[in-house]
Formats: sequence, structure tokens, C-alpha cells
Amino acid sequence: MTVHRFTPTRWHNTLGSHEPEFRCADGDTVIIETLDAIGIDRDGVRRSGPPNPVNAPIFVEGAEPGDALAVEILRMTPTRGTGWTATGLAPNVVDPAAVAALPPREIVTWLIDRQTLTARLESPPAGLDHMTLPLQPMIGCFGVAPSLGQAFSNATSAENGGNMDYRRLGPGTTVWFPVAVPGALFSLGDGHAVQGDGEIVGTGIETTFEIEVRLCVVKNRHLVWPRGETAEAIFSIGNARPLEQALQHATTDMLNWLMADYGLSSAAASHLMGQVVRYDIGNVFDPAYTVACRMPKQWLPARTQD
Amino acid sequence: MTVHRFTPTRWHNTLGSHEPEFRCADGDTVIIETLDAIGIDRDGVRRSGPPNPVNAPIFVEGAEPGDALAVEILRMTPTRGTGWTATGLAPNVVDPAAVAALPPREIVTWLIDRQTLTARLESPPAGLDHMTLPLQPMIGCFGVAPSLGQAFSNATSAENGGNMDYRRLGPGTTVWFPVAVPGALFSLGDGHAVQGDGEIVGTGIETTFEIEVRLCVVKNRHLVWPRGETAEAIFSIGNARPLEQALQHATTDMLNWLMADYGLSSAAASHLMGQVVRYDIGNVFDPAYTVACRMPKQWLPARTQD
Amino acid sequence: MTVHRFTPTRWHNTLGSHEPEFRCADGDTVIIETLDAIGIDRDGVRRSGPPNPVNAPIFVEGAEPGDALAVEILRMTPTRGTGWTATGLAPNVVDPAAVAALPPREIVTWLIDRQTLTARLESPPAGLDHMTLPLQPMIGCFGVAPSLGQAFSNATSAENGGNMDYRRLGPGTTVWFPVAVPGALFSLGDGHAVQGDGEIVGTGIETTFEIEVRLCVVKNRHLVWPRGETAEAIFSIGNARPLEQALQHATTDMLNWLMADYGLSSAAASHLMGQVVRYDIGNVFDPAYTVACRMPKQWLPARTQD
Amino acid sequence: MTVHRFTPTRWHNTLGSHEPEFRCADGDTVIIETLDAIGIDRDGVRRSGPPNPVNAPIFVEGAEPGDALAVEILRMTPTRGTGWTATGLAPNVVDPAAVAALPPREIVTWLIDRQTLTARLESPPAGLDHMTLPLQPMIGCFGVAPSLGQAFSNATSAENGGNMDYRRLGPGTTVWFPVAVPGALFSLGDGHAVQGDGEIVGTGIETTFEIEVRLCVVKNRHLVWPRGETAEAIFSIGNARPLEQALQHATTDMLNWLMADYGLSSAAASHLMGQVVRYDIGNVFDPAYTVACRMPKQWLPARTQD
Repeated sequence: MTVHRFTPTRWHNTLGSHEPEFRCADGDTVIIETLDAIGIDRDGVRRSGPPNPVNAPIFVEGAEPGDALAVEILRMTPTRGTGWTATGLAPNVVDPAAVAALPPREIVTWLIDRQTLTARLESPPAGLDHMTLPLQPMIGCFGVAPSLGQAFSNATSAENGGNMDYRRLGPGTTVWFPVAVPGALFSLGDGHAVQGDGEIVGTGIETTFEIEVRLCVVKNRHLVWPRGETAEAIFSIGNARPLEQALQHATTDMLNWLMADYGLSSAAASHLMGQVVRYDIGNVFDPAYTVACRMPKQWLPARTQD
Repeated sequence: MTVHRFTPTRWHNTLGSHEPEFRCADGDTVIIETLDAIGIDRDGVRRSGPPNPVNAPIFVEGAEPGDALAVEILRMTPTRGTGWTATGLAPNVVDPAAVAALPPREIVTWLIDRQTLTARLESPPAGLDHMTLPLQPMIGCFGVAPSLGQAFSNATSAENGGNMDYRRLGPGTTVWFPVAVPGALFSLGDGHAVQGDGEIVGTGIETTFEIEVRLCVVKNRHLVWPRGETAEAIFSIGNARPLEQALQHATTDMLNWLMADYGLSSAAASHLMGQVVRYDIGNVFDPAYTVACRMPKQWLPARTQD
Repeated sequence: MTVHRFTPTRWHNTLGSHEPEFRCADGDTVIIETLDAIGIDRDGVRRSGPPNPVNAPIFVEGAEPGDALAVEILRMTPTRGTGWTATGLAPNVVDPAAVAALPPREIVTWLIDRQTLTARLESPPAGLDHMTLPLQPMIGCFGVAPSLGQAFSNATSAENGGNMDYRRLGPGTTVWFPVAVPGALFSLGDGHAVQGDGEIVGTGIETTFEIEVRLCVVKNRHLVWPRGETAEAIFSIGNARPLEQALQHATTDMLNWLMADYGLSSAAASHLMGQVVRYDIGNVFDPAYTVACRMPKQWLPARTQD
Repeated sequence: MTVHRFTPTRWHNTLGSHEPEFRCADGDTVIIETLDAIGIDRDGVRRSGPPNPVNAPIFVEGAEPGDALAVEILRMTPTRGTGWTATGLAPNVVDPAAVAALPPREIVTWLIDRQTLTARLESPPAGLDHMTLPLQPMIGCFGVAPSLGQAFSNATSAENGGNMDYRRLGPGTTVWFPVAVPGALFSLGDGHAVQGDGEIVGTGIETTFEIEVRLCVVKNRHLVWPRGETAEAIFSIGNARPLEQALQHATTDMLNWLMADYGLSSAAASHLMGQVVRYDIGNVFDPAYTVACRMPKQWLPARTQD
């Protein structure tokens, strides 16, 4: 296994068929440093702009349309002593009649302690002095080029991944993306030190990371939506509005997964899902919302297909 | 503290201003046996019919409009060796284009082992032989009479509770309902031995229980939505369609709760919620969906109001 | 045909199984005076309160569950020289980020000219001096008692009708409601002198009317949703949130109607609907939204069933 | 005024920053022949593929980001004797429980009579012999390149236009698009001979046209959404899912339009919109739905800005 360090010189605000800046073999590991969501690097230098700049794409050799790109998130090391969040719940996550009373949107600073791996507000308001949060790093925006020559803003997400802002997409998790173009054209950015469900203030704790990912090609996988695996569970992701449609996509994909790879009939899969499934709301802030349909591994039958 | 046993002779398919059949004092404990979702009792005798029959109301002395009724769920003891579920994901939880391939809706039996507190399918389909689930009892449908003389089917839910089908509403949890009529008029039914998030097959494992609840009046609480507390967290519940509106109700209620009872400013509450909030999807099957906005107690500031 | 004048002494804020105050035969005509949406009568006297008080129910002899009640709206004569509307678009009809800039909600007076049948603002703001609108009277809230002993606030609507706030529900239109209880228990109120699509300020021009309706029983009609007919078209109504679900209900009902009464196959009905259907948005303000699926009569085949 | 004939040799399945194939001056008229939705030309020759191929872009001289491109639809002449539609209502426009009974999706042929300007099914099913529809030509998919280097499938729509499938976008209508790139990069395709509201079978009568449009640049217009004007009304378009969000975008844009160009206060605009606004549902089939908020010209105050 080869480990590369890729230092991008270009960043993009879309996932699309951009000229790749780095090539690696199937199975290689790549270390990349990310900018924060508005393009500031570890040293406070603006290297790009919003929304969510990601590295110029990585071309993964052997990846072809119809394959899946497995992205194993090996490590996310915070590289900066500060992060930032927005103040105020997003207008779309509260009752319409409650919007007018929301506080004005401001940006506040968090101090990131890289020894204790915790974050706290630089100037905590009354009542939050105790709030020193353990870091739970995650990648806000990553994925591959979409089909049909499309290119989507990094503010949103779709079948090809993108700005999913889902807190389980961190170290220890493997994510599979449906490959739509030769080389897959993988990019990542928008690391969060911590983020609640739903990303309801519109940000996690936005900062910079050194991220180590292993990129593997799974041939002829024919995914529709991103899928993932943690130590405890597998999950399907749906990215869409409204929230119900994101849930429908994720649920349908999990149903198909259980039938195709675990040999369950549709009825058997429904028995399993009906009583043990879990749903996570990744974000309800971005143009497309993200819902994960999660199945604990302890209830999975043996795989019938690999 | 007085413990009563209330044996209903009437059941209702709505939460409304029905004639109460039992009266208790503020702080009393009541033991009730429930029918299953279609009105069958512990002995297999049909005592009522669907949807989700609940006991004729309990009048709690001292409860007045504007108060909250605290329902402490002390115990749920399964009283039958069998439960049942429906086969097939509900048409509204998969992609519309995937509906036609869903299996026909059938009812299957689960065996409930009251010694080991587990449940398994009587005739498991291929791949599910291993699926012996630990019981996680919960109350599917409970609440108080709604305002304005309204009466709502037990198939759905609203501000007054009802068929919320949320798996955390079991032993160890306290739920507060907004009281709209004198005596609150509390009813419960539709116990589930196990249920996944979303109740996506339209049922949990439907069976009968002996349920012990303590009923306390909190004066002048002026709740809008049901709220709850477990050992680890507090949560606000929103019941509505679409899913996004249920989430908006729950989020707005948590915001208001943190401001009113924990002394946080709107901005401080948004910092807290933004980075540590959790969402649970109770059900996405009933006419009104249920979302809980959950805040781990470890991050709560001290209460400023009781 | 008998014409009755019914002068209610009770009004209700819900459609439910209330004690009827008037009985009529199948085919009779009834003249009723309505209060406005907050319970003020033609003389400015408060007779009831919000939301949308309707007359104590009319028991229509011969109406049984499973029948339809046909309500022919013969006449709506405004009985007051003034009406009122609310200022400001409702928070839920604009982008969440635009809510904070909406004007404060105030009530303004319109002058209703009963000679010219027009309405104009008493104090028009700059730019609206010219806005003298022809009256287009409509019934905001009417329907029958719902099933299962339920009772729903007159702020909302459901299968039994209610606060549909749809501008085509005025003189010349016949509406059919699904009867759920003996006698149907028909009530009406909340007349609007004018209303735009969507009722996006939360009101039409709210005033009082003398309304003349003919009430006929159609035996064994087994409707699910209200249906209507104007001189030019037939329409099915769906009442639900979100807007898409209201549209799905209305569309499904029209499909079923064309198949059952006009002898079309599902494929033929889809050809017809696909190229000539029209949708109207009744309201997007009330808890349940209202969508009508409308089919111009000129494209209807001959009825195969009556 | 110069009239050009542009005969494309390339078609695209996205609206994006593709290499333009034709340039014209501000104010010029361009005549283009379109392919049908799957890329078949007037002679039945496949020239491109689905979805909805549009011409390689037209670069309009003088158009810069922040400007609007006015597209005056002067003429749509059908160029083929046949069109086609799909059979069966789309699964997402009926109740989920009604999906399984929908007919299988098939393609059927319509005969287009270019003398009488009517269309009828080649093999009408029972009950539809009478259905000879007058042509109401409209452009299904047109618009300009989106911002940020994005490119969107012609199956969907967004701020830059695209597959809006709205029946009023035909001859006599002028549409304004927000320009995001130099030259605007205008493309069009997917002509429909007839289409009902909602495009609920997923197609209009799909055929080929010769289309004549006049393209004018309006400097510094800073539109957010497409807007349009017919002989009787002006309208704002929102493209999004769910339907309510499309409506919110359209409503917010109309509010802003009335305030900025017609000098109305927010309160005055709400009085006007509340009582006279009309909504049209363009489509509820595509990934983004389309809603138009329409204001009859007879109620508009004089423009205060041009």
C-alpha cells in the first residue's frame, strides 16, 4: 500500500468533471490538507473562497462508470487552533412564525485544543461556560464527479456525494460513492471538528484538517446512492429535499442492499428493517437534505455476495 | 403515593373529551392493562377494534387547561406470548417508483419470551433465523384530550400526544402533555414490544402490556408540544406532516425550553443545539409524523426555573 | 322543493358530531346567515368566537354513512358593508430567509359595495387606489361530521371538508361531501367576499353572508374526498400537508372518479388527465392545505354511471 | 432587428458553460429547430439522446452576470406530424398506496394536424374518441448557464431555468432569465404540442418545432428566479422540491418584484397578492417542481421603475 501526500494548488466550488491534479492507484492512501468552508487554510491564509472549496480532483486508476469508489477515512488531524460556527438556528429549521425572533447571524470563534482534542467557544455566552466538547471530526463535503457532465455546487449534495454534512462521516467510516466518470475524480473539503444532527445553525465547527483516506475501486458495483460502514453498522444515504424524499432514497437503497448482498427477500428485509432500523438526519440546512438509513451489524445476516 | 389498578370497560379510538371512567389524585400511580392495536386482549379476546383502542379517560384531579400532565412510565410488563407485525415497507417510505415491487401486506406472528424478554418471528424467512430481539417496550399511543372540543383518531397524533410511535416512550421515560381540559383526560394503548425508527412497516411488534404510570400535575406549564426526559436526555416532540414540519415544531420547542427553563439566550441555545443536538424519527407512517429533538443532559446548563 | 330559513342559536368551532339544531328533507333548500371568521354578525355584534364559527349542524333526513351530501350553492348575498383582511404574507408562503422582513400582522377594513358588488380597501396604501375588486363570494369553511366520532377545528380541513378556503366554492358550484354519520350534520361559515389563490395572507375579505344552499342525498356514493362541479368543470379536492400530498389525494380521487363514473381505463384516464388537467391551490395557509384537481367538462366522456 | 437561422450541430443534455455555437447581438431574433425530448428530429432521425437535448448555447453579445436575458417567444411551428406521450400517471403524483395499481408505462403516438393545429391519439382507448385537442405549444426546457461553473441535467430546473415544463411558456410570452456568465449561453429544446398542469404523466405531447425567439439583454437586473409576462399577467417562477418550496420561491420573488418595480410597500403588495394572486403548477414530475405566482395585469399599479 502506497501512501501519497497530495498538496493541491487548485480548489473547486463544485464537484464536476474538472481536470484532475493527482493520480493514484486503486488501493493507495492519500494525505490531503483541507481548507475550511470559506477557503482559509491552517495558517489563516485565504487560498480559495466559499462555498466549501475542495481539492482539484484525484484520478483513481481503474475506476470506471458503474464501479464504486470506496473511501476509507483513516485519520482526520485538526491543523488549526481555531474553528468557527454561525450563530442562530437556520430559518428553515424552526416554525415559520418563530423565524422573526431568531438572533442575527454572526460568526463566532471556537478554540480547538489539539492536545485534549476538545473545542470550546472563545467567548461563551452565559450558561455555556461548561461546554467543552470532545472533537468528533467529520468530512462535510466529499464525493466524485456526477454523471452526464453535470457539476453541482459544494453547497449541496446528490447521488455523487457532496455537502452531506453527516456526523458519522469521520475516521473509522468507509464510504462508497457511485463512479460516473473514468477515474472517479474524487475531492474533499469542509472538515468539521464537531457537528450536531441536522447542522441546524448551518455550520459545524469549521476548521482545517490533515486527512488520510484510502481509495479503492470496487468493480461493477452499480450504486445509486452513497453507502457507508462504521464499526457497528452499515448505512445508506439519501440526499434530497424534502426530508421525506431523502429518507425514501435511503430506505429504498437499504432495502435493495439487503436483498442484493445479504440474500433477503423483500419481505424478510422489511421484517428486519421494520424492527431494528435507525435513521440519522445528516443535515436539514443545505439545498439537499441528507438522511442515513442505518442497520446495526449485529442484526445483519451473513453476506451472500461480495 | 397511592397505587391504583384501573380496569377499563370502555375503550376509545380517539383522544377526545370522552366521559372519564377513573379518577385519581395528582401524584397517584395507575396500573392498566392494554389491548393491542386492533383491540385484542392478553387472552386473545377481542374487546375493541382498530385503530389503537385506548382506555376510557382517567381524570387527574387538579389538572386544568394550561397545566402539564407528567406521565412517568414506571413499568411495561408484556402479558401475552405473542405479538404481530405487518410485512412490507409502507408505500410512503420508499421511492414512489419502488412501490410496485413491495411485497403484499400480510400479518405475521412473533413469539414473545417473557423470561428472557426477547421476541422472534414464529416462522422466520430465510436469513432471519438469528433475529431474536431484546424487548424494548414502548407506548405507541397515549395522551390527553385536545383543545376546543376536538377529537382525533388514534391513528394520528397532534399537540396532545396520540399515536406518536416513538421508541423512547417506554419505561424510564417521563412525558409531559399540555392539558387542555379539566382533569386532562389521560388514555393509553398500542404497546409495542420492539419498534424500529420510523415504524416503517406500519407496526411495531404489537402486543398487550400491563403498564404502570405515575400521573402528576405541573401547574401553569403552558406547553405547546409533548416533552420528555430519559436518564440521559431531554427531548421535545413535534407531530406533523411533512417530516420537516415535525422537525420544525420539535426544534422550536427545544429552543423555547432552553431559553425559558435553562436561562439561555436564543444565541446561546443555538450554539448548544447546533453542535450537540440529536434528532430521532419516531414514525414516518402515521398521518402525522413524529420527530424528537433530543438534548443530552451532559450539555445542559443548570435549570434556572422549575 | 321546500325552502327553509334556519336561524342558528349555536355556533361551533369544530366540525363534529354536535347536536343538530335543524332538520330538513333530502332536496330541501336552506337559507342561513353566517358570522364572519371571528364570530361577528352582520350588525357588528359578536355572536361567537374564532376560529371560523359555523352553524349548529343541519340533520339531513335520509343521509347515512356511505352516502354523499350534495351541497348546491345557490346564492351568497353579502349582508354587511365591511369586511376585513390581514396584512402581510403568511410566514410559511415565503422563503424562510424572507420571513423576518415581512410587515407586522394587522387587520384592515374593506368597504363592500352591495350595489356594484365590489370591495375596496377603506384606506388604500400608495399604489392601490385603483384596486376595486369585483366580489367573488365563496364559502371558506363547510362540511359534514367526520368519521369515528372525531371533531376537527374549523381552522383546518380533512376528508369531511372544513376550512378549505378554495375560491371556486361559491355560487354556481355543487360540492359533494362523504357522509360519515346519520343525517350528515352539515354546517357552514367563514364567507369570503374575495380571495386569491392560496389565501396567502391568511384571510380572504372576511364578512357575513346570507347563503342559500340546496342539500341532497346521493345514496351509497362512498366518496373519500370532497368533489365539486362548476358550469365548466368537475374537480376533486385533497386536504393535507404537505402541498404534494394534497395534490396526490386530489389526483388519485380524480383518477378514481374518471374510472368509476366515466368508464375510462386507468391508461385512458391518464391520457386525459395528463394533457388537459388543471390544478388550483385552494389554500397554503391552514394546517391542512387544499388542492383541487380540475377537469374541464368539454373533455369528459359521457358518464357511464350515475 | 436581425433575424438569424441557427442550425445547431451539437446538442447538450445539461445547461452549463458549454462552448457556444452561435453568437447574436442584443435584440436579435433567432430561429431554431428543436429535437424532441429523446433527441429525434422532424424527420424521425435520432440526432441526440435523452434527457431533453438542447442546442449548443447561443452567446448573446453584451450579456454579463447580473443582467437578465429576455426571451420573447415569437413563434412555435410544429414540424412533424406526430408526437408522443407516456401512459400512466407518475408514481409521485398519486397516493403512495395507489401506485401499485397504475398501468405499465408505455409510449403512445399522437397525430398532429398542422392545418387545424390539433392533436389526437393515433389509437384512442375507449371513451377518448372525442379527444382532439387544440395545440398549445410551449417550450419544456430552456434557460441559460448557471452560476459557479455548475451544469444541471435537462431533466431538472433551477434558478437558471431548465426543464420547467410550464404550459404558459409558449408563443406570446416573454421570459427573463438571470444571466450568470458572459453571453448568457442560451439554449432551448423539449417542445410540447399540448401539456396539462403538472405534466403528471411525465410528458406533454412531445414533438419537434421551429421556434422563433427574440433575445434581449436587460442590464443590471439582478434576478434570482425566471420571470415572465403574457398578454394578461406577469409571473414569477420557483423551481424546487418540495412543491411548497417552489411556491415560496415564486411568491417571494413576486413580492420583491412588486416592491422594486411597482413601488408597493410590503404591506401593500401583500394586500394585492392576497386577494388576486393566481398560482399555476408547471410540473410536479421533474426532480425540481415548478410553480408560477401570477399577477393579472389589470390589478398592477403603474411601474415606478423600468
